[in-house]
Amino acid sequence: MNIVMIGAGNLATGMGIALIENGHKIVLVYSRSEESASLLASKLNCPFTIDLSKIKIDADIYIIAVKDNVISDIVMSYNFGDKLVVHTAGSVPIDVFSGYCKNFGVLYPLQTFSKNRIVGFGNIPICIEANSNENLEILRRLATSLSSDVRPVSSMERQQIHLAAVFVCNFVNHFYTIGEILVVEKGMDFGILKPLILETAMKAIESSPATVQTGPAVRNNKQIIDKHLQMLEKQHEWKEFYQLISNDIYKIQNNQ
Amino acid sequence: MNIVMIGAGNLATGMGIALIENGHKIVLVYSRSEESASLLASKLNCPFTIDLSKIKIDADIYIIAVKDNVISDIVMSYNFGDKLVVHTAGSVPIDVFSGYCKNFGVLYPLQTFSKNRIVGFGNIPICIEANSNENLEILRRLATSLSSDVRPVSSMERQQIHLAAVFVCNFVNHFYTIGEILVVEKGMDFGILKPLILETAMKAIESSPATVQTGPAVRNNKQIIDKHLQMLEKQHEWKEFYQLISNDIYKIQNNQ
Repeated sequence: MNIVMIGAGNLATGMGIALIENGHKIVLVYSRSEESASLLASKLNCPFTIDLSKIKIDADIYIIAVKDNVISDIVMSYNFGDKLVVHTAGSVPIDVFSGYCKNFGVLYPLQTFSKNRIVGFGNIPICIEANSNENLEILRRLATSLSSDVRPVSSMERQQIHLAAVFVCNFVNHFYTIGEILVVEKGMDFGILKPLILETAMKAIESSPATVQTGPAVRNNKQIIDKHLQMLEKQHEWKEFYQLISNDIYKIQNNQ
Repeated sequence: MNIVMIGAGNLATGMGIALIENGHKIVLVYSRSEESASLLASKLNCPFTIDLSKIKIDADIYIIAVKDNVISDIVMSYNFGDKLVVHTAGSVPIDVFSGYCKNFGVLYPLQTFSKNRIVGFGNIPICIEANSNENLEILRRLATSLSSDVRPVSSMERQQIHLAAVFVCNFVNHFYTIGEILVVEKGMDFGILKPLILETAMKAIESSPATVQTGPAVRNNKQIIDKHLQMLEKQHEWKEFYQLISNDIYKIQNNQ
């Protein structure tokens, strides 16, 4: 398909690369930032523009991969006519397009993207939604060309997936960060935690995380918990996390 | 080496299997529970006992791999003479042995163990500590036969590592559990989160987690944060986690 990519951030980059690797053509990249637009255009070997009115090129689909709060600005400030337009956000309902576009949908790849890290799309769940069965089929074909895991998902389900993703990705990564700070501040290196981080992830995805919980909280080992709280005396927020999450682990693991 | 394994839980099982795979011999397994003792003994092809006084067999090293709060009971209730005795706990200082044993130390493999999951020891960090240089060398040789990552670590450093491990393993696994509950309660399956979980771990260990944070909190996207808090209205604890951790992500990522 011939595609206009609106946006040049982490997701636009990851998806743009996956699209051209799977035989599609990006005909134009748009971004408000010339630096971002030209960088992504060079990666995708296509022209770019920083003028939204210039995107009236003839393409099969327009992918809006910008910050969530900018999506509606773009939808409102450009007339896509009867072209198929999709956004890629977890938390923006499909009705952001209603009244502005005729053919629209959502193409939400459930993954964390960084500009400098190439992520294989092959097994990423891609959640699709559209305003008609016909458009849903177009999105299904496009998504299936990128990944083996394509799921029609409603806006409400997608928001719930996004909420879960904040816990298992952003919050988890924050706890990796806390772990790193804790070992580094005592002169050790983050490397010591890496095998544990990987095994924790592998173990959870090979079964169900609720069934493989270990550690002082699930055993309610008060001696260790109190010692750890004491060690976090100067890191108030982390002490609070420790207390609250330990209580919740015990509660959930003991079905209270 | 000829080894007596005191304990038959997750860690004793994982370490026992790794030891015999690397040419050592478990000469006896002790556990208070006959069921656990016999199960592990059958895996390690050795005899077992549930009577602590029966461990006075002639071995090179006695590994105490029991719950943290039981270690001192065992140390106090059995006379190890001049035999080398070690425990395997993250949070128990080496001085638990002082006054009771002549030759002692710690052999702490930084990993999460489950009885039914075989974990490769090859790259697990093993933290060692001993009451003499001679004993430290014995432990270094033993640990090096299991893993390429052996580190002399003080009791204080080990406690800090254990604290960090609670964040990157137990608390992370709890957030996987929350993610699972959130998607399952809306009729979806945990599978949808698996590629994200794995990529989040891979990305963090290939660089530094602090540098790869994504999501609504780091961008301080209030619209999404408020929406998510609203969705967690009936899950008070999780709503509280969401608020507190989002604040902390923003603070840490913006060096406040």
